Amino acid sequence: MDPGRELGVNSFEIGARDGAARAGVLHTAHGDVRTPAFVPLASHATVRGLQSSEVAALGFEMVLGNTFHLFIRPGHERIAKLGGLHEFMGWERPIITDSGGFQVFSMGHGGVAEEIKASGGSRGQGHGSVLEIAEEGVRFRSYLGGEEKFMGPETSMGIQQALGSDVVLAFDECTPFHAGRDYTAGATERTHRWLERCLRWREENAAGGLFYGIVQGGTWEDLRSASAQRVAGSSIDGIAVGGSLGQDKDQIREVVGWTLRELPETLPRHLLGIGDVDDIVAAVAQGIDTFDCATPTRLARHGTALVPDPGARWRLDLKKPSEQDSAEPIAADCPCPACTDHTRAYIHYLARAGELTAVRLLVLHNLTFMHALMETLRAGVGSGNLEARGEAILAGDSPYDICPD
Amino acid sequence: MDPGRELGVNSFEIGARDGAARAGVLHTAHGDVRTPAFVPLASHATVRGLQSSEVAALGFEMVLGNTFHLFIRPGHERIAKLGGLHEFMGWERPIITDSGGFQVFSMGHGGVAEEIKASGGSRGQGHGSVLEIAEEGVRFRSYLGGEEKFMGPETSMGIQQALGSDVVLAFDECTPFHAGRDYTAGATERTHRWLERCLRWREENAAGGLFYGIVQGGTWEDLRSASAQRVAGSSIDGIAVGGSLGQDKDQIREVVGWTLRELPETLPRHLLGIGDVDDIVAAVAQGIDTFDCATPTRLARHGTALVPDPGARWRLDLKKPSEQDSAEPIAADCPCPACTDHTRAYIHYLARAGELTAVRLLVLHNLTFMHALMETLRAGVGSGNLEARGEAILAGDSPYDICPD
Repeated sequence: MDPGRELGVNSFEIGARDGAARAGVLHTAHGDVRTPAFVPLASHATVRGLQSSEVAALGFEMVLGNTFHLFIRPGHERIAKLGGLHEFMGWERPIITDSGGFQVFSMGHGGVAEEIKASGGSRGQGHGSVLEIAEEGVRFRSYLGGEEKFMGPETSMGIQQALGSDVVLAFDECTPFHAGRDYTAGATERTHRWLERCLRWREENAAGGLFYGIVQGGTWEDLRSASAQRVAGSSIDGIAVGGSLGQDKDQIREVVGWTLRELPETLPRHLLGIGDVDDIVAAVAQGIDTFDCATPTRLARHGTALVPDPGARWRLDLKKPSEQDSAEPIAADCPCPACTDHTRAYIHYLARAGELTAVRLLVLHNLTFMHALMETLRAGVGSGNLEARGEAILAGDSPYDICPD
Repeated sequence: MDPGRELGVNSFEIGARDGAARAGVLHTAHGDVRTPAFVPLASHATVRGLQSSEVAALGFEMVLGNTFHLFIRPGHERIAKLGGLHEFMGWERPIITDSGGFQVFSMGHGGVAEEIKASGGSRGQGHGSVLEIAEEGVRFRSYLGGEEKFMGPETSMGIQQALGSDVVLAFDECTPFHAGRDYTAGATERTHRWLERCLRWREENAAGGLFYGIVQGGTWEDLRSASAQRVAGSSIDGIAVGGSLGQDKDQIREVVGWTLRELPETLPRHLLGIGDVDDIVAAVAQGIDTFDCATPTRLARHGTALVPDPGARWRLDLKKPSEQDSAEPIAADCPCPACTDHTRAYIHYLARAGELTAVRLLVLHNLTFMHALMETLRAGVGSGNLEARGEAILAGDSPYDICPD
């Protein structure tokens, strides 16, 4: 028996469908996650500026911890000794952990983070330098202290096991857009061999949690299809779509489509590093169940709020001089404290002054926006009007207005 | 009639006495402040990392806004147009505003902030450069953009009026410890002339709020006595004790003593920039009613918690390697979220990683500690056992244990 399947084949239940979209429940050892869902980043064991209890109060049922960053600091053994990542960060709900592959390879490929960022999403950013990429794994120099470190499939599985992750991701190579077909094909094949090593390690170590394989293959239809078939044919509990999804939003949709058509209906599907509003609306309609992305918290750090404005890519830069005298809230119908208690002028001032309170208020606002967006899409699947709701969002309707409750 | 006294001579009521100490209520246009009280700094219209509603939830009844910083950015006219400082920062309770004198003169005298910091307290720190100190006021270069600015008594009163301050401080020169007797005597005399100009401006402009004069005079007994008499003889609603209070804690107590013995019982007394636990215990016993200090929030920014440990000056440096594996809370009996939800190891890690959540958790913790300290001292005055409570605090008892409720 595969210990990754200890919760049974019914770890994901689909409750409603609307076209290719699904509304479901992911069952984990730390509770359920209703889908479609956005997963806030707690890369460094904290969602920027918030206590874990506040993230739960916003309605989120899962956060993403980062294997690479937590390996570097404070170290997975330390977290394990302190009771695991849930206990360490005071978060009692499910945790999905990135495999570390993205960050390790970002150091080598350089451009991946920038490319994905340019296309509207990101899985966070790597630093340091890669010393060697080999079949065994990757040797690199830590961005703290500069000591040499190694990460391979077994390392990644061991770290995620020590963290006590509920949803473990396979160790993969995230190939950059500029890599070219030959490199991407070779790296995707190696990612498949690493998937087998991940599975073997998990079996030998009776590892817990659900296990997701990662589909790579860049922007080539045949490579994506083959990777999706290969990963779906493995002993996995779910699938994550990774790697470069292309240069623009149309290509993202195309690559996601090539991947999804090869996957069984029964498995939950996570789309890595994508979080723009229009991308989420499209991907939910295509059949993606969960998303993670640094954008809502990164925008907050830079003084930008998410708002129902498609013409501005759903972004409002509060540092703009035009906001300095505005007595309006960011969004009149938003229930977050930034909007109920404060004006744009105040947040403009705080952001310009570099005050932590600005980051915090905007993280609260942006995550409230993301949660409302997912709620309305999920309700849309349930009531069979996802397309209308999606169109309303894309036309600039507020997700709060559309929300059922 | 002096408009500064619009709330009547009973703006301060003393409810209980214990020796020279008093427990009272300061009545302001935005509500009451029970004393003795610590006033958290909201220098830049925010208590670092907290929403105003959270500061109120911690139990604080007044915050301190900074005239100088808010003059530089976002500008008092802008705040006035947006409804005043209370409305701007979403704080409905009383606000005391520093006069700006400390920051303006810190730029010129350089050493004041460092000196006061070294002796355990601070009123915040100035930047930029002074161009000219004259009878009229001070010309200086703004630390933002470098443009030339001017601040004198009338400017300061105008800014505080525009902010809508509940407790307005007179414009003063905060003389540094190294200034020497002649300079200090001259500057103190000028501060007295500026006090008269402040009063005249307030009368001519029917200014609101309570008005506190500031006693200067450095560390010379005769200068302090004369300044206290002069200020107390003016048409004021309260007295603030400012300037260099000396090189060590004994000298602080001595200088405060010289000042207080000249003051009428009826006026409320504020001690500027002093916030160390032992200094507060001593000053409350001497008859000080309110305190402001950057220390609790500044320590938080540097990863340090306030704890009942006199041997370590009530400080616990969570960045120390010895805290990295500690599964203990900062203080077992503290009700703040840093202590109820998290370990020292987690906060050590967050502080080392430079995460905002560390600053926020430590601000919450340190302000909770300060509030508990003031609660226990206030209850001590009420029940006539202030001395015993003060001794218990100085011996390392927890303020939470001693708290009446």
